[in-house]
Amino acid sequence: MVLLSGGLDSATVAAELIQDGWRVHALTVDYGQRHAAEIAAAREIAAALGVEEHLVLPVDLAAFGGSALTDASIAVPKSRDPLAPVEASIPVTYVPARNLVLLALACSFAEARGAEAVAIGVNALDYSGYPDCRPEFVRAFAEAARLGTRCGVEGAPLRLLTPLQELSKAQILARARALGVPVARTVSCYDPSAAGTACGRCDACRLRARAERELLGEA
Amino acid sequence: MVLLSGGLDSATVAAELIQDGWRVHALTVDYGQRHAAEIAAAREIAAALGVEEHLVLPVDLAAFGGSALTDASIAVPKSRDPLAPVEASIPVTYVPARNLVLLALACSFAEARGAEAVAIGVNALDYSGYPDCRPEFVRAFAEAARLGTRCGVEGAPLRLLTPLQELSKAQILARARALGVPVARTVSCYDPSAAGTACGRCDACRLRARAERELLGEA
Repeated sequence: MVLLSGGLDSATVAAELIQDGWRVHALTVDYGQRHAAEIAAAREIAAALGVEEHLVLPVDLAAFGGSALTDASIAVPKSRDPLAPVEASIPVTYVPARNLVLLALACSFAEARGAEAVAIGVNALDYSGYPDCRPEFVRAFAEAARLGTRCGVEGAPLRLLTPLQELSKAQILARARALGVPVARTVSCYDPSAAGTACGRCDACRLRARAERELLGEA
Repeated sequence: MVLLSGGLDSATVAAELIQDGWRVHALTVDYGQRHAAEIAAAREIAAALGVEEHLVLPVDLAAFGGSALTDASIAVPKSRDPLAPVEASIPVTYVPARNLVLLALACSFAEARGAEAVAIGVNALDYSGYPDCRPEFVRAFAEAARLGTRCGVEGAPLRLLTPLQELSKAQILARARALGVPVARTVSCYDPSAAGTACGRCDACRLRARAERELLGEA
């Protein structure tokens, strides 16, 4: 069960698991994100990669608010310099407990389908400073999921796969290209136009731009 | 932030916290449960108790299936004897990772509101054998929530309150009555009629009936 957002990272996870021989089911959560263009991207990526099943589940976290990604009245921070580094502190684009919610939903879906594992494209090297992307969180979550599920109690706990955890964004981008991920279709931008065009200045765009430049430098 | 299902236990938690001076916000998750009558009950209970805010959030776990409570093709187990004890094994009414999902959503809502604590009416004494009602699960979840939230990382982790954890169903019922909970309006039955009338034979009905008889015996 792969959490597929429509962004680069989760698409790379899905492609890698399919290449490794897994039968991949994908879950996309439509949580009321400002960048709803990523939902359309997720559908196209799922079709392009050939997943077994793709479910888009609406869960309106915008009803809670508290984030620039779910509350239109909070602006997404942008830098004038499209290659400016991303700050280390937790930004206003943090969505309260998002990965806790996404992983919980993925575990529910995974258990209902009898899946062996749940995969998520977190990485803690080039990221936006979100606490729920860190390996210590994922480890603690896996333990909670083991204790709180039938499969965990009856002997086959869900494995939590984070294949990108230690990769830089440039390494992820290189891997995505090698795996044939439709990179141009992925939407990482936090504030794209309605048509899905990236803003080029938000944290996610700058992380992607810096990764592209790094790969060009190596080429 | 109280998870309010519309059942006896969560109504008792909300009433107790209000009596203790908390300002209670309530979250009800409409997850596609067979016993949707409990959603209407939750609204009435929230109004009767006077919570600060009550949000009903649709999250269609029935799209995952895998439980008698979310899949109409799986029957809810019933006993001929309305006072028969409940079996210890995990029944088909188990909803995959339900409390993982509910607690994750409650943490997201709580963090967005700046709440101090999340409360859930789990109890591991007279219960349906669900793994996600056990104290070891709740402890592990609290640790994952601490590591995966801004508030957990920046110094004020959400407290997880389970005031009913060690109580029997009879003790909960007695407490509910003492607190003025509109007990007759709560819906515990897993398979009520469309009008909300309890079936009297499912695990939840039998636990409630046994508790009522126990209290009568003490009176």
